[in-house]
Amino acid sequence: MQLEKISENKVAGGWHQRWQHDSSTTNGKMTFAIFLPEKAKEQPVPVLYWLSGLTCTDENFMQKAGAFKQAATLGMAIVAPDTSPRGEGVADANQYDLGQGAGFYVNATQAPWQSHYQMYDYVAYELPELIESHFAVNNQRAIAGHSMGGHGALVIGLRNPSRYSSISAFSPICHPTECPWGKQAFSAYLGDDEQTWQAYDATVLLAQGPTAMPMLVDQGDKDGFLAEQLNPQALKQAAEKHNSPLTLRMQPGYDHSYFFISTFIDEHLAFHATRFAR
Amino acid sequence: MQLEKISENKVAGGWHQRWQHDSSTTNGKMTFAIFLPEKAKEQPVPVLYWLSGLTCTDENFMQKAGAFKQAATLGMAIVAPDTSPRGEGVADANQYDLGQGAGFYVNATQAPWQSHYQMYDYVAYELPELIESHFAVNNQRAIAGHSMGGHGALVIGLRNPSRYSSISAFSPICHPTECPWGKQAFSAYLGDDEQTWQAYDATVLLAQGPTAMPMLVDQGDKDGFLAEQLNPQALKQAAEKHNSPLTLRMQPGYDHSYFFISTFIDEHLAFHATRFAR
Repeated sequence: MQLEKISENKVAGGWHQRWQHDSSTTNGKMTFAIFLPEKAKEQPVPVLYWLSGLTCTDENFMQKAGAFKQAATLGMAIVAPDTSPRGEGVADANQYDLGQGAGFYVNATQAPWQSHYQMYDYVAYELPELIESHFAVNNQRAIAGHSMGGHGALVIGLRNPSRYSSISAFSPICHPTECPWGKQAFSAYLGDDEQTWQAYDATVLLAQGPTAMPMLVDQGDKDGFLAEQLNPQALKQAAEKHNSPLTLRMQPGYDHSYFFISTFIDEHLAFHATRFAR
Repeated sequence: MQLEKISENKVAGGWHQRWQHDSSTTNGKMTFAIFLPEKAKEQPVPVLYWLSGLTCTDENFMQKAGAFKQAATLGMAIVAPDTSPRGEGVADANQYDLGQGAGFYVNATQAPWQSHYQMYDYVAYELPELIESHFAVNNQRAIAGHSMGGHGALVIGLRNPSRYSSISAFSPICHPTECPWGKQAFSAYLGDDEQTWQAYDATVLLAQGPTAMPMLVDQGDKDGFLAEQLNPQALKQAAEKHNSPLTLRMQPGYDHSYFFISTFIDEHLAFHATRFAR
């Protein structure tokens, strides 16, 4: 598996790097970004995987979240994959909420998507294996994300409790089988049998039984997508049903943007840091 | 003077807002962004003016610098103007380093630029007057910037010592009369008489005599523009000639990007905060 470095910038005493590689899971080139704190020069560090939202690439979080100082202080790497496969030969829909930039972190089963859109397996398995074999990190993992990526973080984390020590999300799509974004994406990628959608819905997963996975969710109450798409109350009810450890914080005045994320990202990193094994 | 709000986001307990207004100085519509900390609800706060570099708008700093938490802690507003006039009827050169997005913070005297490109007067006079009459700020001002904007901050601050309490810059164009970017821009905007260029060159200004203005400059030593365009050593020599209070810090490994700025912006804000009158 060959890794090609696209760029590198020193930041907060550590390094932000962008890499490209051939993915056997998505059957094409994938791009990701990594922040390596200075501490990684001395010893392997834990990794927070960050999954971005609709229209994003590996760059949005790295340029806008303002997370590097806190990650450097806590001695934590951050890895941000792209939000879908891309490039020639990769199916697209010419809309912002389906196709390239909108992989929804599922393994597609339907044409024309299934040949490349295997983002669940890519994020949960191939990418961590790649990161852990090429960078100065250990196998302690946390997962977080925003909006579509918050959905991805919750689903991948809840379905792989032995692989992640904590989950956090900003403005996640909490119940995609019941909102327009999710229904459209799951219909396209997974087909009409709604039973196959269940495994990709964090609210459904939490309703099925208890989990010990620590979860932190921040949601702005001035988020324009809150009413129609996000459903944090459904997630909360599902967690309460089994006393699962979800903290949902409604943040007054905040919207869906990276201005919101940048305000609370330090608290999310601290949340994950305390849950890595010491 | 009518102000039109373009957008607003809550961030770090305060507000990021974008505004448009008719400028009598640049003879057209101008856009700026402002960060107002929560403290501005209780009392007027001082203002840091941030001048961006080539190709930037009001948005780059606000999205990428990660300055809001520190500004909120220090109780400081930040105002980021656009880097030039824009729009229909505004001259342009279809290149990244001249015309729209590249006003160089001068008052142009040459056609076709002089009817709109009056960025020196806009930043030094019209914009502060507008800000101080419409927002919860006082008349304590600091000025900072990056690259072309670092040049602008040094020149505007040094020429108006009664109006600003401190200056800082990242990777500034320190001696524009002697570098390719500056020569091209000053030839176009100011004409062939190089005597008229002198008032817009921070190194020339510092060489003319002592100043009490506190100045902080950070420069990455892996900056691809350092050798040909930036000349921080010339600035330092001019300051040392008269014992003017310039601190120049060469930062090992850092480049010309916002990753660099985001690493040290908190220190710049603290530098300015200690120099505002208490």
